[in-house]
Amino acid sequence: MSGFRYESIATDGAARRGRLHTAHGTVETPAFMPVGTAGTVKAMLPDHVRSTGAEIVLGNTYHLMLRPGADRVQRLGGLHKFMNWPGPILTDSGGYQVMSLSSLRKLTEQGVTFQSHIDGSKHMLTPERAVEIQHQLDSTISMCLDECAPHPIEPELGRKSMEMSMRWAERCRAAFRDRPGYALFGIVQGGIDRQMRGESAGALKRIGFDGYAIGGLAVGEGTGLMLETIDATVPHLPADRPRYLMGVGRPDELVEAVRRGIDMFDCVMPTRSGRTGQAFVPGGVVNLRNARHADDARPLDPACPCPACRGYSRAYLHHLTKSKEMLGPVLLTWHNLQFYQDLMAGLRQAIAGGSLAQFAAGFHAARRAGDQDAETDAEEET
Amino acid sequence: MSGFRYESIATDGAARRGRLHTAHGTVETPAFMPVGTAGTVKAMLPDHVRSTGAEIVLGNTYHLMLRPGADRVQRLGGLHKFMNWPGPILTDSGGYQVMSLSSLRKLTEQGVTFQSHIDGSKHMLTPERAVEIQHQLDSTISMCLDECAPHPIEPELGRKSMEMSMRWAERCRAAFRDRPGYALFGIVQGGIDRQMRGESAGALKRIGFDGYAIGGLAVGEGTGLMLETIDATVPHLPADRPRYLMGVGRPDELVEAVRRGIDMFDCVMPTRSGRTGQAFVPGGVVNLRNARHADDARPLDPACPCPACRGYSRAYLHHLTKSKEMLGPVLLTWHNLQFYQDLMAGLRQAIAGGSLAQFAAGFHAARRAGDQDAETDAEEET
Repeated sequence: MSGFRYESIATDGAARRGRLHTAHGTVETPAFMPVGTAGTVKAMLPDHVRSTGAEIVLGNTYHLMLRPGADRVQRLGGLHKFMNWPGPILTDSGGYQVMSLSSLRKLTEQGVTFQSHIDGSKHMLTPERAVEIQHQLDSTISMCLDECAPHPIEPELGRKSMEMSMRWAERCRAAFRDRPGYALFGIVQGGIDRQMRGESAGALKRIGFDGYAIGGLAVGEGTGLMLETIDATVPHLPADRPRYLMGVGRPDELVEAVRRGIDMFDCVMPTRSGRTGQAFVPGGVVNLRNARHADDARPLDPACPCPACRGYSRAYLHHLTKSKEMLGPVLLTWHNLQFYQDLMAGLRQAIAGGSLAQFAAGFHAARRAGDQDAETDAEEET
Repeated sequence: MSGFRYESIATDGAARRGRLHTAHGTVETPAFMPVGTAGTVKAMLPDHVRSTGAEIVLGNTYHLMLRPGADRVQRLGGLHKFMNWPGPILTDSGGYQVMSLSSLRKLTEQGVTFQSHIDGSKHMLTPERAVEIQHQLDSTISMCLDECAPHPIEPELGRKSMEMSMRWAERCRAAFRDRPGYALFGIVQGGIDRQMRGESAGALKRIGFDGYAIGGLAVGEGTGLMLETIDATVPHLPADRPRYLMGVGRPDELVEAVRRGIDMFDCVMPTRSGRTGQAFVPGGVVNLRNARHADDARPLDPACPCPACRGYSRAYLHHLTKSKEMLGPVLLTWHNLQFYQDLMAGLRQAIAGGSLAQFAAGFHAARRAGDQDAETDAEEET
């Protein structure tokens, strides 16, 4: 046994209130994982990330293998020490970034070769190599290498891609060295095809993983199809293992995915939006670049405990954004992470109290009512 | 009486250990003021600036009058509230930046007209207007508008410039509204001409100011001539008022200027160097962009209490710098400000203990011995 464990605390409908036990500490679920692409949650010190309530962060295998290199991170004591985050770290497998960032890709049953987007150097990722790199990083939760198929895709190509990802999952499982409190997650693929999602989940269950992710969503299919696909997938996943929806998403998507039984999320939206002057508030998203904020003495959100809301006016945040001052991204990233973590804390409390439906209704009502200055939605991640 | 007061605590030779009493709190001197050009010490939260030991920061009238505008800062409650720095703030007069940043300048006895470097809009600064803007900002310590003459300069032009600055100082004094705990400083000019420096100091003393600055240095004359000019100026300044050396400087220059009786400093060097991957250590300056740091597991400075030194390896700081991650400037700015504040604390303690000569000798010896990786000096500020 791995020592890695999902503890069930409460349920409310399909939603689950739980706790992950790992080699690097516990994680209350449902949980949102801030993205620390290159060994840093951009613009944030780890203590400040933790102060928002985050207990686990995500690292990107693709970025770290290219720079500074997984062997170097290993020599320096692993990713936790390198980035000064002693808590749990989940790393993706690199597959998604190979598809979205690198060039000259060549995909075979063996794996994928590609050129670095940084210096053009050639690299190969196989299921075995992806697992090995994550061992070198000392990742608490490793992810299987999969092929991230485009959307939309021809049904036959989609099936081939899913089936190869399942064979890769088996190779990842074989390559993974079990250690107490460490975990390997499989990734359900199959696009928006409910039948294939069920087959993929079944294949992964037969192999056996410490947790199950739903991959290949938030790629342009829209929130409706995303939620339908979650509905079609979750019943096929074992109840005693954590469920992770990869790369999602907007606050309203988190609420709806939690209602459908998802336990873990990651997304660049709060951090990336913070770097472009966008701030999440209960009524939507405030674009601080807009001149309407220039004389606004109010805080972003009077109820928010983050430094941006406790110490500053919207006018000041507008000034920082207009002036391209680094403190702008620092404060807005902090605020957005606080917003996401407070949302997750609210969801956890609602599940424990059996009041998730009311919580969700209140959340959506606040969003519909809107902030007078929150006319925009967060720009789509790319 | 202004209520603003310089309290003498100890002396060691010409060096002074003192305390400034202001409307916004006290400042232990000698003091280094981090530069917060546009209403933010770049990349730093005010709490973090204060955690390094800083008790006063500097704001730039030129930048703030152009963006967000002094009237706007006033409407929003003043600069302290705007930037969430309740402690003392010194603002310069804008004269230096008009000369170094703006275009289409026209200088007359009345004042200077110029075009904004941001949007080309036309502005005028007169002695009266510079003081009024600093009132609007609610600056704790305002500076007189002066002409910053270039170096080198023809003696006759240098004299004309100095004499006009003295007439402007008189106009500033007349325009300044005394309020308890607020101050107006005059600025000694005269280039590297010892005679003119004495005349300028005498003219300012006759007008009467709450403090006296030495301007027009660190403009290319070199450390030797700078120190000679300080030596020629300080004896002309009243002992019961603070002395501020503007825009200086390197750590070794601070040490030598303190020995000559200077109480206050400001410089962009620690913050700007931090944004370009340079870190101050007792042995000199470490350039973290250098590949030699890629595998260095050591902290920047094991004796430094800042987050960069407590939490990270040189290898990690190199990685951040190479990857252009925002956390690099954040950590290195923090470290450099900590280095500067620790140096000032060491100087204050040495003066109080009558051991400044030994402290200075130790400081210079460490610098000569060098860090094995500190081969460079900080890049010159521009």
